[in-house]
Amino acid sequence: MSSTRDIDALIELMAKLPGLGPRSARRAVLHLIRKRALLLTPLSDLMQTVAVTARECLNCGNVGTADVCDICTSEKRANGELCVVEDVADLWAMERSGVFKGRYHVLGGTLSALDAIGPQELRIPRLVDRIDTEGVSEVILALNATIDGQTTAHYIADQLEGRVRLTSLAQGVPIGGELDYLDDGTITAAMQARKSI
Amino acid sequence: MSSTRDIDALIELMAKLPGLGPRSARRAVLHLIRKRALLLTPLSDLMQTVAVTARECLNCGNVGTADVCDICTSEKRANGELCVVEDVADLWAMERSGVFKGRYHVLGGTLSALDAIGPQELRIPRLVDRIDTEGVSEVILALNATIDGQTTAHYIADQLEGRVRLTSLAQGVPIGGELDYLDDGTITAAMQARKSI
Repeated sequence: MSSTRDIDALIELMAKLPGLGPRSARRAVLHLIRKRALLLTPLSDLMQTVAVTARECLNCGNVGTADVCDICTSEKRANGELCVVEDVADLWAMERSGVFKGRYHVLGGTLSALDAIGPQELRIPRLVDRIDTEGVSEVILALNATIDGQTTAHYIADQLEGRVRLTSLAQGVPIGGELDYLDDGTITAAMQARKSI
Repeated sequence: MSSTRDIDALIELMAKLPGLGPRSARRAVLHLIRKRALLLTPLSDLMQTVAVTARECLNCGNVGTADVCDICTSEKRANGELCVVEDVADLWAMERSGVFKGRYHVLGGTLSALDAIGPQELRIPRLVDRIDTEGVSEVILALNATIDGQTTAHYIADQLEGRVRLTSLAQGVPIGGELDYLDDGTITAAMQARKSI
């Protein structure tokens, strides 16, 4: 290779990011070098900052820069509703929709016997604690509609049964969805949960 | 948003990289935060280094960490062959193939009347100089097979006519290519340049 050691090493590291392969990493690095002042230097500085400040919220598992995140400290969001999600990315997706005004609990994955991930690894004991300490009246299970997600939802429902109101996200036709492109499972779920208009 | 200012800013900057949009930038940043020691810190350090050391070779325009790149300083590559490419990415692609043993000249783009890019903007005067000073015997025009690339190739060929042997890359069926999926232009070029076996 004609490019020297540091540049090659940078390309190699960039290629490890999800969504980037060797070719797009090379393109990204050339772009960064061309936009040095506008992109490369600020990006490097911000990464340095985030590497020091980013941490998981001790209460809910959200990623932020404080020991306890904004949502957990905000009194406005202590409305008794607790939304359980698999991952921080799911929490961010919920927040973008702006529809939920309560607090979150990030499991950090799903139960998996194969990968030896049990309730202890998933912040489930912490979830059970929070029901009492935060006076939660409703737990909304917003887990992914995958086998693993639903298995985990069933386990959590078993643990919390009788202690709190349990709900899950509705399943059906997504907004803008065309029936012709939907799978059988979604159509079946939408038909079974049909509502009067 | 629940994530705090620095993390949001990092996502915004990452989304400016070619090949990444807002969604993949969020995924990449979460991945970086999870792999802090393995990925985020080394990446930030390397970017800082590259921001300081990366520069264009004063002779050929290749990107490296020295004022004159390895290829231009290597006596082994002074074999009289000079390969003209549009972009550093093209030079890297040629080097990966390992087929070319001479030196390069990176134009940094193509001629474009609309974008006011003339020969002066493209390191073409420097190319003309190099023919004499480096004792070049053959110039291989490895420009992209696009309208702009071919226009630029014609201009350079005009400038250098009679002074040096001029060649261009062969056009035809790519290795592994299926005729059914090739465009008419490629099939026409391959037929016209057919060779006896």
